Amino acid sequence: MTYTPSNPENVFTYGAPFLKFGPGSSDEIGYDLSLTGAKRALVVTDPGISATGIPQRVAEQMSPFGIDALVYDQVHVEPTDASFREAIEFAREHGPFDAYVAVGGGSSIDTAKAVDLLMTNPGDLMDYVNAPVGEGRNPEQPLKPLIAVPTTTGTGAESTTICVLDVIEHKVKTGISHARLRPTMAVVDPRLILTQPPGVTASAGMDILSHALESWTARPYTAYEHKKPEERVPYCGRNPIADMWATKALHLLSTSFRQSVHHGDDEAARADMSLAATFAGMGFGNAGVHIPHANAYPIAGRVKDFHPADYPGTEPMVPHGMAVSLTAPEAFRFTFETDPDRHIGAARMLAPDAPMTNDPRDLLPSVLMDLMRDIGIPNGIDAVGYDESDIPDLVAGTMKQQRVLASCPREVREEDISGIFERSLTLW
Amino acid sequence: MTYTPSNPENVFTYGAPFLKFGPGSSDEIGYDLSLTGAKRALVVTDPGISATGIPQRVAEQMSPFGIDALVYDQVHVEPTDASFREAIEFAREHGPFDAYVAVGGGSSIDTAKAVDLLMTNPGDLMDYVNAPVGEGRNPEQPLKPLIAVPTTTGTGAESTTICVLDVIEHKVKTGISHARLRPTMAVVDPRLILTQPPGVTASAGMDILSHALESWTARPYTAYEHKKPEERVPYCGRNPIADMWATKALHLLSTSFRQSVHHGDDEAARADMSLAATFAGMGFGNAGVHIPHANAYPIAGRVKDFHPADYPGTEPMVPHGMAVSLTAPEAFRFTFETDPDRHIGAARMLAPDAPMTNDPRDLLPSVLMDLMRDIGIPNGIDAVGYDESDIPDLVAGTMKQQRVLASCPREVREEDISGIFERSLTLW
Repeated sequence: MTYTPSNPENVFTYGAPFLKFGPGSSDEIGYDLSLTGAKRALVVTDPGISATGIPQRVAEQMSPFGIDALVYDQVHVEPTDASFREAIEFAREHGPFDAYVAVGGGSSIDTAKAVDLLMTNPGDLMDYVNAPVGEGRNPEQPLKPLIAVPTTTGTGAESTTICVLDVIEHKVKTGISHARLRPTMAVVDPRLILTQPPGVTASAGMDILSHALESWTARPYTAYEHKKPEERVPYCGRNPIADMWATKALHLLSTSFRQSVHHGDDEAARADMSLAATFAGMGFGNAGVHIPHANAYPIAGRVKDFHPADYPGTEPMVPHGMAVSLTAPEAFRFTFETDPDRHIGAARMLAPDAPMTNDPRDLLPSVLMDLMRDIGIPNGIDAVGYDESDIPDLVAGTMKQQRVLASCPREVREEDISGIFERSLTLW
Repeated sequence: MTYTPSNPENVFTYGAPFLKFGPGSSDEIGYDLSLTGAKRALVVTDPGISATGIPQRVAEQMSPFGIDALVYDQVHVEPTDASFREAIEFAREHGPFDAYVAVGGGSSIDTAKAVDLLMTNPGDLMDYVNAPVGEGRNPEQPLKPLIAVPTTTGTGAESTTICVLDVIEHKVKTGISHARLRPTMAVVDPRLILTQPPGVTASAGMDILSHALESWTARPYTAYEHKKPEERVPYCGRNPIADMWATKALHLLSTSFRQSVHHGDDEAARADMSLAATFAGMGFGNAGVHIPHANAYPIAGRVKDFHPADYPGTEPMVPHGMAVSLTAPEAFRFTFETDPDRHIGAARMLAPDAPMTNDPRDLLPSVLMDLMRDIGIPNGIDAVGYDESDIPDLVAGTMKQQRVLASCPREVREEDISGIFERSLTLW
């Protein structure tokens, strides 16, 4: 049930972008970019972030360094193959560019990765999308420098080697995953997220938390078969370095998550959450994520009529972090037996004072549910519009995420996922 | 006495090489290098390591990937401007190269950094050496990929942005320091260090330990004046990320340092020490080091007739890690008052069961001395050949290391260093 490789892996890898962290750090991007010799840069963002004026400010600070910057502000939140293509077309029309700067959430950062990829490597978008949806081709040419400037505390996309997209024709969320996609630099400026409303902070924070917990409980690198060098992938399994980042993220979340939701003007708590997001990204960007993220794809993708508080727009949506969190308690109950100490340890890091449950496997789920209740996350997938009859469809959606499920510390069968969804209809 | 900036810094940076860790990872370098498109590589090593055949094995594994590799095995242990120049001349004569692979200790890795720098940027070595010894010029061109393969557990040079050299004419140890000097990749293969003898393991381990402790107690980034982007340096002061690496290194040292000295065939302890070396490097490579390292320069540089056990060669020497350790107990007694909790905390991480001392400022020094005694480090600078009359000379040597001393959490006067040397003549 857990993995017992015949020739266990004994090598792990660790990669991370160069990081600049602190209030005002986003005002220095023109200088940082000048070090790469760039003369023309494309700033990639979405209409909502564009309305704040931040991307324009980033673009303007480049001209003193002789860098001509153009802003593309039509990123689609929850990008699709169509929205990626539009961005790529824009870049082809107005390019070439020497560098890219993504300002926004995961959608903007992921779109910039795709644009950079297709501007430096030949072929079509679908050539590079993970098989079996796409061809899963490896980019052979290095990409141009990409500076990622996250404006929400959650995504971790600034640290990862993947860009996620909905392929409309196949009604599936998938991605492009390759070491070359990792941004060269992450600029994390806590001032950019001071205005994030409580509902967004809660959902995005659950994404951070789940990154940390999924990477902390992911299949260890030693539970894979030994790989040839050309078989190595960025998500190599949990390892001492990924563990360190996850642990540190959990400690920051333990002290600052509730505070940042309930007192959004607490600059120190906001800074902690920015750090936690980056730290969790440094961890899962190497270890991988598993069931909660795999389940989040169909939960978000098949939304019917749910409208979360504090999110703009009129389209129904289940925010990514919320979608991730809804099955997390049951997912970690499922993985408990692969390493009880690790699950109990995570609960203790998150809530040092929580009383021990009668059954130790309930501890982490109960700590999570207590937090979710407190910060206004809906009570299970029923509360975002799904009922018993939707479960087969949700399970089918999850089972398409085999690349993600492979990071689970035990083998995942269809009935396991079905059970997790059943028990996640109503959580408390 | 501690620093109180008028406009405190609130930004920190963090950089690290891509890391591959594990037994056998050094067998994959040909493949890793092929991803950079390299066709010609220079392998840089010293005669001692060359005699093991490891560098040749690394070079040979490149040909299946169409990479022509040449081995330069004349690195001088404790490099000088003359030895750097010889290596650069060799590279100019046999180059150009698309990539560099350093196999060895800090001397080989640092020599490779200097060669890479001078093969990609115009001018003379001394143009780039830190002022006032050299011109302190910034390299304007990016360097070629450099893969660092440490064969001793100590240096951390695989993670850092500096190369250290003795400038013979000025009788001074100094360096070249710039972000572009950081290796692109570190390959840490614990199998390469299984044969390291106890004396070398002890000294190199004290270097790791001091990297961790100096970075953990270094002047915080918030205790510097706020910098303009062009004023930022790789050693930005201690910060939450550097702290995390230092902490993790201390925990590994706590369990495996003594074991790796006394039972060198313990593969798990060796792997822990390899990890600890890398982790400490990731920390001090961003936070900086301070007094023990500044003092180590004259202690090693003015050696008279000391011959350490287990080191090859007939020249007198004080190994770098040993030199670092000899004044460490007194240095941390001096920095204690800047942050008592941090000093006590470090001692607790290193020796959780050590009894509290009457004066809390004695705890970390006593834990260090207990360890040093146990692993055969000499009892102070007297034991490596210095007496009272040498102290003015040693102090003068230390005071030349202003770039290093600037990382101390409190201002360092000549009489402070003099006192530290006095009290380090005999430690226990």
